[in-house]
Amino acid sequence: MSRREADVIIVGAGLSGLIAARTVLQAGLTPLVLEADERVGGRILTEDALPGVPVELGAQWIGDTHERMFALAAELGVETFPQYDEGETSYDLVGSGVLRENDFHARFGSELAELEKVLRLLDELAAEVPPEAPWLAPRAAAWDSITAGAWYDGQGLSPVARTLLEICTVGILAVPTVEVSLLHLLFTIQTCGVTSELFAESEGGAQTVRFVGGTGEIPKRLAALFTDHIVLNAPVLLIEHGTDRVTVHCRGGLVAEGRRVIVAISPTLAGRIMYDPPLPGVRDQLTQRLPNASAMKAFFIYDEPFWRADGLNGQLISDVGPARMSNDTCIPGDDHGVLLLFLEGEQARTFGRLPEEERRAAMTAELVRHFGERAARPEFYIDGEWSDRQWTRGCYNANCGPLVWTTFGHALAEPIGVIHWASTDTAIRWSAYMEGAVEAGERAAHAVIAELAG
Amino acid sequence: MSRREADVIIVGAGLSGLIAARTVLQAGLTPLVLEADERVGGRILTEDALPGVPVELGAQWIGDTHERMFALAAELGVETFPQYDEGETSYDLVGSGVLRENDFHARFGSELAELEKVLRLLDELAAEVPPEAPWLAPRAAAWDSITAGAWYDGQGLSPVARTLLEICTVGILAVPTVEVSLLHLLFTIQTCGVTSELFAESEGGAQTVRFVGGTGEIPKRLAALFTDHIVLNAPVLLIEHGTDRVTVHCRGGLVAEGRRVIVAISPTLAGRIMYDPPLPGVRDQLTQRLPNASAMKAFFIYDEPFWRADGLNGQLISDVGPARMSNDTCIPGDDHGVLLLFLEGEQARTFGRLPEEERRAAMTAELVRHFGERAARPEFYIDGEWSDRQWTRGCYNANCGPLVWTTFGHALAEPIGVIHWASTDTAIRWSAYMEGAVEAGERAAHAVIAELAG
Repeated sequence: MSRREADVIIVGAGLSGLIAARTVLQAGLTPLVLEADERVGGRILTEDALPGVPVELGAQWIGDTHERMFALAAELGVETFPQYDEGETSYDLVGSGVLRENDFHARFGSELAELEKVLRLLDELAAEVPPEAPWLAPRAAAWDSITAGAWYDGQGLSPVARTLLEICTVGILAVPTVEVSLLHLLFTIQTCGVTSELFAESEGGAQTVRFVGGTGEIPKRLAALFTDHIVLNAPVLLIEHGTDRVTVHCRGGLVAEGRRVIVAISPTLAGRIMYDPPLPGVRDQLTQRLPNASAMKAFFIYDEPFWRADGLNGQLISDVGPARMSNDTCIPGDDHGVLLLFLEGEQARTFGRLPEEERRAAMTAELVRHFGERAARPEFYIDGEWSDRQWTRGCYNANCGPLVWTTFGHALAEPIGVIHWASTDTAIRWSAYMEGAVEAGERAAHAVIAELAG
Repeated sequence: MSRREADVIIVGAGLSGLIAARTVLQAGLTPLVLEADERVGGRILTEDALPGVPVELGAQWIGDTHERMFALAAELGVETFPQYDEGETSYDLVGSGVLRENDFHARFGSELAELEKVLRLLDELAAEVPPEAPWLAPRAAAWDSITAGAWYDGQGLSPVARTLLEICTVGILAVPTVEVSLLHLLFTIQTCGVTSELFAESEGGAQTVRFVGGTGEIPKRLAALFTDHIVLNAPVLLIEHGTDRVTVHCRGGLVAEGRRVIVAISPTLAGRIMYDPPLPGVRDQLTQRLPNASAMKAFFIYDEPFWRADGLNGQLISDVGPARMSNDTCIPGDDHGVLLLFLEGEQARTFGRLPEEERRAAMTAELVRHFGERAARPEFYIDGEWSDRQWTRGCYNANCGPLVWTTFGHALAEPIGVIHWASTDTAIRWSAYMEGAVEAGERAAHAVIAELAG
């Protein structure tokens, strides 16, 4: 058993926790970050698949409006590069067979117009949702009583438009749309701006910029600034809290004492910590109702990006195989071709539970259908499912079913005595993204700093 | 720090855990029950409101088909008595104003016929759901993709019938019907038999028999049979598990070692324990998705049951005030009149969070409207909200939103190595009731006994 002392104890060395620690440090206070895992980064996880080919099992992109992330990257000396986006997407929807983008657009022009119309309607409705308090939206009660999926079903869409809408949305939420309320979907849109910034195919959206060396450079370099203030392999079991005092007990015997604690992990994980005195019922029942979503990323690495020569951009959109979407995630200056397949929601749950050989075979078959026989012969394969990871337990973020926002939402970020909450799930702008993690970490740190100065 | 050794460690001294312990003991093995709270009983909680007037803040009734509970009560020498059920119920629905049952039935005969028709349809659909595996129901995928509330809305019901249906259902689930899937509702019906056994007003249903001295006599007398095998104030933080070995770490330093562990607490609480090695993702994501419901019971105790002389049975059914339902819960042989108000789902969340004076005033006003001015002058008042209780965190039980049963349900009761699961939430028959707690405790114990004998 060992003891550590600091002004502010921070639970979790994901991006939000690291930002909180840095902000606290810059204010002249002492932070101590307790991380359960053997590494920093949380839902950011870069693996060196091959020499010079880092792949992102977790957070990967930023978008044009992610100002905090651009500033952070610049400060840390992490360069960025644009997502490759030349050529056509490959479609296979509702029995269409494999079609290139231009052919798909020619054949399903009216269906795409339907989709566009619903997205505009979603934008209009989302504009009525205050991102800092979705429960105050004028129609919050009605929107929180219906699932997004049921609302979609009620829009009178053709099968192709409905399927595309589902794929777009699951690509963001990583759960089927019947698992979230319409209000949650509208909050998700509003926190990011408009659907065109959010959904997969749009330009200028949230998935346009990547980091040289991998996203993992961000938490790594950030943590390097204050290594002495971070303890790894320190899962928090118990937080005792008083009027101006907090004692945090970790597995293995470490006891950290301070004046404030910032819990910078996803709400469902925050709900697992034992608190003494216990937290109010409303906070507890909230964390029972914020399950993490289900997502898996799989990377196929080839000797070259052969699809580019065929005029393809490496993206597929399909309702046939295990992956609803893919991306070209090659590394500039490296010759390899890297295809990323997304397994999200239902696909993550079914294929993610299969033995690696089986899920890989299913993905390979899908890639071959869209990109040809060469897709069957990767040099390297790697995938990562997040629900099995003990200190994450699901990605990308927490999703709210019916009535969660309106009944419990106000307790999401509200401090309780000396306990403050961070993690991207608590952000107001770009919640669920790295940008939101930074915002939430700064917000919690500033609140703590103000309290300790006051 | 102290060490204890037993064959089977049991987490939780609720009814399910106590039954598991007794079953293990009867098989010649040694159990050790670790209870976080300072008392046994879990969701059973009898308080002596006045001398000779025990009230049930938790589980209260059993029904005619609860064979295990009748046998257990007989064995423990706990007598039973029938729920008082003479006189008329008082209604106030959809602006009807207060109406006695006969007047209500005369005025809303066709609406009650509508309700009856939907209940028969629910019974028919529920009969297709295998209670041991709801996900195998022929139409499970469709039924798990729609909320019970949306399905209700689609039945073309009049406002009175729809409101009554909501009140009946929330009286069982303790959450609004838009929070659960239709499949979960059908499972709930099927686990109990048919709607007429389940819903509030029916005779021969689940709320017909009470225990002399209070329901708390059951866990109290059960625990007294093996006091040496129970440790109170021992919240479990960590379970280390191997092929034939389990080490359970409690707050305060107690370490219990054994060959098997039965976790006999609600799934959401079971998910908060740290497991080493970590549990599979499917189990973890399941426990993220089984929130406990929201329920509160409030008791008004008068010098006599004055409503009886007015030909009323003490029941109200209303969509006006804080309570949707009430009951006469007098004690035979005692002169006091005891009225129980149920605050369930939305009402528990809104009124349950108000200061006691405010929620009590709102309830008093409702009682006066239905039972007259004498209702304003109770001798004693007591209420109990469950989400604030650290070792329960919501009642009556776990509820499944869309896609939980079909995607994660198989992991609910499935043992993981040396870890077995009990609690009424895992029962097949009368899940969520005391009867289910006994079934689940016996099932888990028998599985463990068989493994240790084999």
